[in-house]
Amino acid sequence: MPTFTPPLRDYQFVLHETLKIDQNTAVAGYADMTADMTSAVLAEAGRLASEMLIKSNTTGDQEGCKLENGQVRTPSGYQEAFAALREGGWPSLECHEEYGGQGMPSVISLAVGEMHSAANMALMMYQGLTHGAYSALHAHGTAEQKNTYLPKLASGEWTGTMNLTEPQCGTDLGLIRTKAEPQEDGSYLITGQKIFISAGDHDLAQNIIHLVLAKIPGGPEGVKGISLFVVPKIQVGADGALGQRNNVSCGKLEEKMGIHGNATCVMNYDGAVGWLVGEPHKGLRAMFTMMNEARLLVGMQGLAQATIAYQNAAEYARDRLQGRAVTGAEAPDKPADPLIVHPDVRRMLMDQRAFIEGGRAFLLWGSTLIDAEKHHQDEAARDDAGAMIALLTPVLKGFLTDKGYENASQAQQVFGGHGYIEEWGMSQYVRDARIAMIYEGANGVQALDLVGRKLGQNGGKAIMRFFEVMREFAKENGDDEELKAEFLAPLKEASGHLQEAGMYFMQAGLKNPNDALAGSNDFLHLFGHTALGFMWALMAKAARQALAEGTDDKAFYEAKLTTGRYFMTKLLPETGMRLARIKAGSAQVMALPAEAF
Amino acid sequence: MPTFTPPLRDYQFVLHETLKIDQNTAVAGYADMTADMTSAVLAEAGRLASEMLIKSNTTGDQEGCKLENGQVRTPSGYQEAFAALREGGWPSLECHEEYGGQGMPSVISLAVGEMHSAANMALMMYQGLTHGAYSALHAHGTAEQKNTYLPKLASGEWTGTMNLTEPQCGTDLGLIRTKAEPQEDGSYLITGQKIFISAGDHDLAQNIIHLVLAKIPGGPEGVKGISLFVVPKIQVGADGALGQRNNVSCGKLEEKMGIHGNATCVMNYDGAVGWLVGEPHKGLRAMFTMMNEARLLVGMQGLAQATIAYQNAAEYARDRLQGRAVTGAEAPDKPADPLIVHPDVRRMLMDQRAFIEGGRAFLLWGSTLIDAEKHHQDEAARDDAGAMIALLTPVLKGFLTDKGYENASQAQQVFGGHGYIEEWGMSQYVRDARIAMIYEGANGVQALDLVGRKLGQNGGKAIMRFFEVMREFAKENGDDEELKAEFLAPLKEASGHLQEAGMYFMQAGLKNPNDALAGSNDFLHLFGHTALGFMWALMAKAARQALAEGTDDKAFYEAKLTTGRYFMTKLLPETGMRLARIKAGSAQVMALPAEAF
Repeated sequence: MPTFTPPLRDYQFVLHETLKIDQNTAVAGYADMTADMTSAVLAEAGRLASEMLIKSNTTGDQEGCKLENGQVRTPSGYQEAFAALREGGWPSLECHEEYGGQGMPSVISLAVGEMHSAANMALMMYQGLTHGAYSALHAHGTAEQKNTYLPKLASGEWTGTMNLTEPQCGTDLGLIRTKAEPQEDGSYLITGQKIFISAGDHDLAQNIIHLVLAKIPGGPEGVKGISLFVVPKIQVGADGALGQRNNVSCGKLEEKMGIHGNATCVMNYDGAVGWLVGEPHKGLRAMFTMMNEARLLVGMQGLAQATIAYQNAAEYARDRLQGRAVTGAEAPDKPADPLIVHPDVRRMLMDQRAFIEGGRAFLLWGSTLIDAEKHHQDEAARDDAGAMIALLTPVLKGFLTDKGYENASQAQQVFGGHGYIEEWGMSQYVRDARIAMIYEGANGVQALDLVGRKLGQNGGKAIMRFFEVMREFAKENGDDEELKAEFLAPLKEASGHLQEAGMYFMQAGLKNPNDALAGSNDFLHLFGHTALGFMWALMAKAARQALAEGTDDKAFYEAKLTTGRYFMTKLLPETGMRLARIKAGSAQVMALPAEAF
Repeated sequence: MPTFTPPLRDYQFVLHETLKIDQNTAVAGYADMTADMTSAVLAEAGRLASEMLIKSNTTGDQEGCKLENGQVRTPSGYQEAFAALREGGWPSLECHEEYGGQGMPSVISLAVGEMHSAANMALMMYQGLTHGAYSALHAHGTAEQKNTYLPKLASGEWTGTMNLTEPQCGTDLGLIRTKAEPQEDGSYLITGQKIFISAGDHDLAQNIIHLVLAKIPGGPEGVKGISLFVVPKIQVGADGALGQRNNVSCGKLEEKMGIHGNATCVMNYDGAVGWLVGEPHKGLRAMFTMMNEARLLVGMQGLAQATIAYQNAAEYARDRLQGRAVTGAEAPDKPADPLIVHPDVRRMLMDQRAFIEGGRAFLLWGSTLIDAEKHHQDEAARDDAGAMIALLTPVLKGFLTDKGYENASQAQQVFGGHGYIEEWGMSQYVRDARIAMIYEGANGVQALDLVGRKLGQNGGKAIMRFFEVMREFAKENGDDEELKAEFLAPLKEASGHLQEAGMYFMQAGLKNPNDALAGSNDFLHLFGHTALGFMWALMAKAARQALAEGTDDKAFYEAKLTTGRYFMTKLLPETGMRLARIKAGSAQVMALPAEAF
């Protein structure tokens, strides 16, 4: 059975020694985030993950959800685990105090989320979607709607969903057919079918609050005619009491590759009573305001699956005896050496480790930008942070999920044949991680968003700021010759590649937009590598400083530097290949007629 | 439901226009392999795949195998499909005529195998393992053993298995504990437990012939004390009649990520009667003589899953309407354009196509080397071919399965959310393809075999010959300026990277073998890319020639050239990155103490 060790030391290193969040007092709330405070919260979150949430992960995968008489039953252990989450107050961590939340910053919430998702991704989706519904209602709901729904969503008594997809439309929401007929009392009757609705029905909460995109008849065509509605599974009276069952039901559960413990529902709306959220026809905008956060959460899921898969692969590699080290037996008293003596096994583990630790820093850095966008005291700083996180979001989502899946699969490989059988749990991590590349905008859509929208926004201001931040760091630390040689120099080369790719898109893309879009996936990966290179440079600086100042924890910092050097020499060279692919343009991509495929 | 279109035109192009097998009359049997002959065989094989074998692929995945009262039941449809294979004579395709086989060359058998595996990989494993048992017995069995078993294995009336792995040992067979006690009648009583035995029990054949590695008490320690035994499920009398049930049984079926239709068994040998195959204590060598072929078959499986996944992804991309082309609507009369207008969707399809067509040529070229090793009239040519295929085997196995899995996953991505649900079948291709990276020697073991053994064998003669073959081709075609610019020049750069990596291993590896082994996986991928680059150069030449001579099939050859150019400009640049990783050495790979992981 897989185990999970909360990476508490690493969180402290990233939060307090690298990003130094508690010194960033210009962001409201950050001054309270002392190392003592964050380590207490994270230790508690980690304990819940490693002792409770993980218990129903395998059984959840094996049993899956069941649809019985129109009601979805979650796997055994899920109710107990969800109750523990609720009792611990975890669903309300990031919610506003006025609605019963704890008002913790995003950066803490994401660290907690990584651990909880590592332990049980399918279960945590019930909470994740609830938070999405909370955010949408908080941003766009009326005061009455907020008072009705937010406290219950924050407490986890109720959960939420997002209903976008229909059989004929996923990415292209202009094709939505679900209708919302206005009624005299101000409500709407919602009719249509939604598919792929995660957590659409279940037995973990008293009520489920569906947020649904639909069209009001007579509105504009396409995406400009989409409105957002709140549709509770059980109707809620003015006093907040539960009333009648609404006309919405789960018609079918999908059989999926993974996340079996989460109910993926076909939802049928048969004249269900719904209430408009925000303005009519502005539903897509309302839905997208929370997209950045939702996409960060998905990036976090990719990282989380890589994290737990890596931990178990490392343990297996230390325990399993097979073969002898090429340089001579390392455990001569045993029938064979442990797997970890073999260079290619270590290569796999180091690939994972360098990605995970770099990716974790990237995710947490991204979260500080969300906090700054919301809570920085200075408006210009809020705008800058908002522009930067808008740019980074598709990279965080696309890169962390592509690599998260790849690394989970690499961890599975360490187990040999034992990785392929379900007994050891590695197959589940790979199968669960696979969805993160697809939902909340498939990674191709992330790449399109990055290159087609975010890159050129405000004349490319955000990416120029990204380069500037890296340059400033290099300048400040240019006197440290070792840091320069090992970290700053390769980072400079990678960011040069990124810059050159951006220039290519500007020049070629003006003539032929396909030239930019054909390289969008490569650009996303080029960007992701560069960002992780930057994170490693920041972490290397922090580690070197700790070692210079003297520390009891020398092994930790030295391992950090080794892993950083591994990233810079072994993984960062991918940027050159990505640039070459980008500059090869779109001619061969677009040349074949569709029927030739 | 997925469909399969036999790539018959492509086989003709590779076999007769690129490799020109029928002109290679020095290999016995090749003169008969005219285009008419091979197209008849392959069309028939393709029909069986697309009309019969594919029918039980999805149901096989959903139902899996069941162990009932000690007997494994295969999924519904498997018996019918296996009977069709048997009736069509497909199990005997490559077997010797004296044992009822058809004596067809490997190159035809592999092409047939790709189609059959694409249609139903789990089912075809029953036949593939049978052929492995056939080959082992043919190479090492006594005349009596051959007469007893080979005709029945060739006809498919009986099937075979390979029993190597035990709970405590996979790759490291020196740790085997299964015992073989000699009896007075010359037989042995086999006792022990084997795990991960594919096709270990089932209901598709009258008898199952197990080939089992075991130790004769008193023999040498480690791998030098392993012997090979034949252990029939039902004992066979001197007259060939079936007798008593042997003391071997399936104790458990493993739950796996994929290939659910194939029974992966824990096999318990409780004093089962077995007969020595070959010499005592030389069992490992006997088992390894057929390893090259078995590994090629696994490489073929990786390719096959990519092939069928690609075909269905391409069809989906042509059919599914979603979004508009960035350069303006291409289907203005429809609510949206088909997915295939989007550059990143095409990028995914072209990645797959360039790999599949190049990989297919590589696999078939490798098969011609197996045929030449066995049947070339000239002994030196037989030796050369044998040395070359020994070098290429780990690349064919490792590269085609790593990339086959990656490409199947990419095909799944084209489907968006529909790719993740089981209904569309794409998840199964990914899950099935995953095992090919693991069994028959995990890909890390392939990389170790390549760098640690094959590369330096006979003073590096085989790889030098590989470089020479590429150089000769470049020289012969150096006057074709377009071929030179588009294909020969990038191939030269890639082979330069491969050469530089080989030199690095020789120099660094002498001082520290870890430096070579830490780069072994990168070397395997560098080699695979270079080999596919060479294949694309060969195919480009053939396509250019056909176009120059005039052809009715212009679109085919032009698509071939486009796909080739895509490979050279978009995929081949990976060789530079692989070289950089290799030259980064092993310092950061080996630095951390085991407990730091």
